Amino acid sequence: MAVGSGNLPELHDVEGFRLGIASAGIKTPGRRDLVVMEICAGASVAGVFTQNAFCAAPVQVAKRHIAAEASRYLLVNTGNANAGTGAQGVTDSEQCCVFLAEQAGVIPEQVLPFSTGVIGELLDVSKIAKAIPQAIADLKPDNWVAAAEGIMTTDTRPKAASRQFELAGATVNVTGIAKGAGMIKPNMATMLGYIATDAAVDQALLNKMVLEASNLSFNRITIDGDTSTNDACILVATGKAALAPLNSEEDALYQPLMDAICSVFIELAQGLVRDGEGASKFVTVKVVGGKTEQETLAVAFTVAESPLVKTALFASDPNWGRLLAAIGRAGVENLDVNNVSVQLNEVLIAEHGCRAASYTEEQGQAVMDKEEITITIDLARGEQHSTVWTTDLSYDYVRINADYRS
Amino acid sequence: MAVGSGNLPELHDVEGFRLGIASAGIKTPGRRDLVVMEICAGASVAGVFTQNAFCAAPVQVAKRHIAAEASRYLLVNTGNANAGTGAQGVTDSEQCCVFLAEQAGVIPEQVLPFSTGVIGELLDVSKIAKAIPQAIADLKPDNWVAAAEGIMTTDTRPKAASRQFELAGATVNVTGIAKGAGMIKPNMATMLGYIATDAAVDQALLNKMVLEASNLSFNRITIDGDTSTNDACILVATGKAALAPLNSEEDALYQPLMDAICSVFIELAQGLVRDGEGASKFVTVKVVGGKTEQETLAVAFTVAESPLVKTALFASDPNWGRLLAAIGRAGVENLDVNNVSVQLNEVLIAEHGCRAASYTEEQGQAVMDKEEITITIDLARGEQHSTVWTTDLSYDYVRINADYRS
Repeated sequence: MAVGSGNLPELHDVEGFRLGIASAGIKTPGRRDLVVMEICAGASVAGVFTQNAFCAAPVQVAKRHIAAEASRYLLVNTGNANAGTGAQGVTDSEQCCVFLAEQAGVIPEQVLPFSTGVIGELLDVSKIAKAIPQAIADLKPDNWVAAAEGIMTTDTRPKAASRQFELAGATVNVTGIAKGAGMIKPNMATMLGYIATDAAVDQALLNKMVLEASNLSFNRITIDGDTSTNDACILVATGKAALAPLNSEEDALYQPLMDAICSVFIELAQGLVRDGEGASKFVTVKVVGGKTEQETLAVAFTVAESPLVKTALFASDPNWGRLLAAIGRAGVENLDVNNVSVQLNEVLIAEHGCRAASYTEEQGQAVMDKEEITITIDLARGEQHSTVWTTDLSYDYVRINADYRS
Repeated sequence: MAVGSGNLPELHDVEGFRLGIASAGIKTPGRRDLVVMEICAGASVAGVFTQNAFCAAPVQVAKRHIAAEASRYLLVNTGNANAGTGAQGVTDSEQCCVFLAEQAGVIPEQVLPFSTGVIGELLDVSKIAKAIPQAIADLKPDNWVAAAEGIMTTDTRPKAASRQFELAGATVNVTGIAKGAGMIKPNMATMLGYIATDAAVDQALLNKMVLEASNLSFNRITIDGDTSTNDACILVATGKAALAPLNSEEDALYQPLMDAICSVFIELAQGLVRDGEGASKFVTVKVVGGKTEQETLAVAFTVAESPLVKTALFASDPNWGRLLAAIGRAGVENLDVNNVSVQLNEVLIAEHGCRAASYTEEQGQAVMDKEEITITIDLARGEQHSTVWTTDLSYDYVRINADYRS
């Protein structure tokens, strides 16, 4: 089950970034489960990683490598998360980097490793070693779709997004892929994202951009409130576009590039929600009128993660009482509930702490029957706002997570 | 579905406290849906109420009344929560107090109202007025079981607990009832608790005791993380036991009385979990070795509320990876995961950030197949500890909450 068509858009090549896929047979024989991404020399590479204290071995290694050397290769395997594997897991992950580095003629610290799949089992590094040459031989700039498929686990479909814009006569491309279906604050199934642009961006600025873009996208989606041990998102700027390097937010390139990057990040993040485990609805929770962004986020996440709200969404039940109760427990200081109003799409459903006088069940039902729903909550106490995306909580969510040993 | 036998224990009368039940036909004709509890003159009465900013009309009225006058009557209706009913709801709730006060010969501020059931619909006060004389005529000290049944909504069975102990030749009784099945941090189905003792307790001290006992019981259970607009818990000390009044924590009576009260509170709270919506497991999450109580509670609730942990519990899957991931995202500062260990009952399942060397799936499976499971998490960084109780997340939870317009 997933929401929306899932058709992939046109994916623009990013000069200086190539992708290769191979079959290592890590979990399922014949499955294309290994992806190598090659980054040209001179590129900037920035990343964000899971905040979970139990972070998997490849996350520990990738964080160390990205800080130590200019990254030249990304190595992703599915089928095994190399998480909960202790010191041996770290050694195994480093060994994978050595294999790829030897084949590619770089040093191991220039390789960033990523793993997703079953946790608590040791990685069979010999299988990965054997498949690496095959992935390298497959490196192509137009391999985005195959790579998006190669990094999938419980995903029912690949996720990719792309933008292109012109600036000062030059063409700039931003293309990315992601995986995850439990999701962010994602489940053990892991969220991974790889986004590349051919713009040239100063390293410190790129670090800031990947953080900001993640905060507006992958950190604004929630299926079940759980976070993975393996989450990572990498933003690469190859510098191959015919434009001067971007060094500051004052540059003319900054805003159009940041808009394109955020737009790709958000489309990927929404793609994860649309493919959320058991999802039958795509729900946007928008909180406006807050005193602080923090309180709008608290309300948005409390509503988006409330099992009672989510089961009502699954039932297509316009249950404004559960919405009010979730808003009420979000911990907003001195919230005057008499000022709060709630809309489902364009329908005013609650105000003054109770059902809106104009509201009818028929109106609410008409909205709830749709596959895409926007809940707008106005706290009416300030100018701050924020938006998160989520799904309903269905029988299928329970079935998938009760059956799948992730 | 519920966990354990649900057989009620012997319930000791509490002199000075009587209960009467009537049928008002609020939602279902013929159902005994109205409970009146009479408190003798001179008693101390203390309460805790929902922290939800959207608190229901009766909660607003009860908080005002308990602060204003010596409470003499508790009035509970099921079938209608009188929540999300705005100013009219408050008027209606006050009106119910007036009806009971007139019949009982007290002033309206001496009546505390409580409602539970459907939200967003106005209460039919005339039905309640008509049934009040019938409830008063039914007042008896040994009516605990009928009252426990009278306050039920989605509960599948009544909850009651009782303790009796001797001190200085006198017999002291503590008896209580509770309702709720979604539960605390309870869902819109509401948690209500009424506990009485015949000890005499100073008002200020009783206020402190009801807070402490609630914090160790009703505030330590969670089914789905949601909190109700109507939750309330009342502790009454009638002063009819042949003992001097309790004025201080230094008195010899304090510890045995507090132990008995906490024990009743915890048994009632656990009863709510055992009757949790769709519950097939009763799970104790015990976190030890914390630097602060706060961090042990954060870990315990993060684990207890994780949908991934809860679906694994439903599947009887000893998924230690999901447990570690939940511990890892609880926000404990500088947590060294290499020191953390996790037990399922007596079985060491994880240590040093990975599966315990001694652990076998068979051992884990044997524990997970049981109906009652204790997860013990040792953070190994201090002396603080705390315990919460929860259930699994089942198909039935989704079914109940997708079907029930609470």
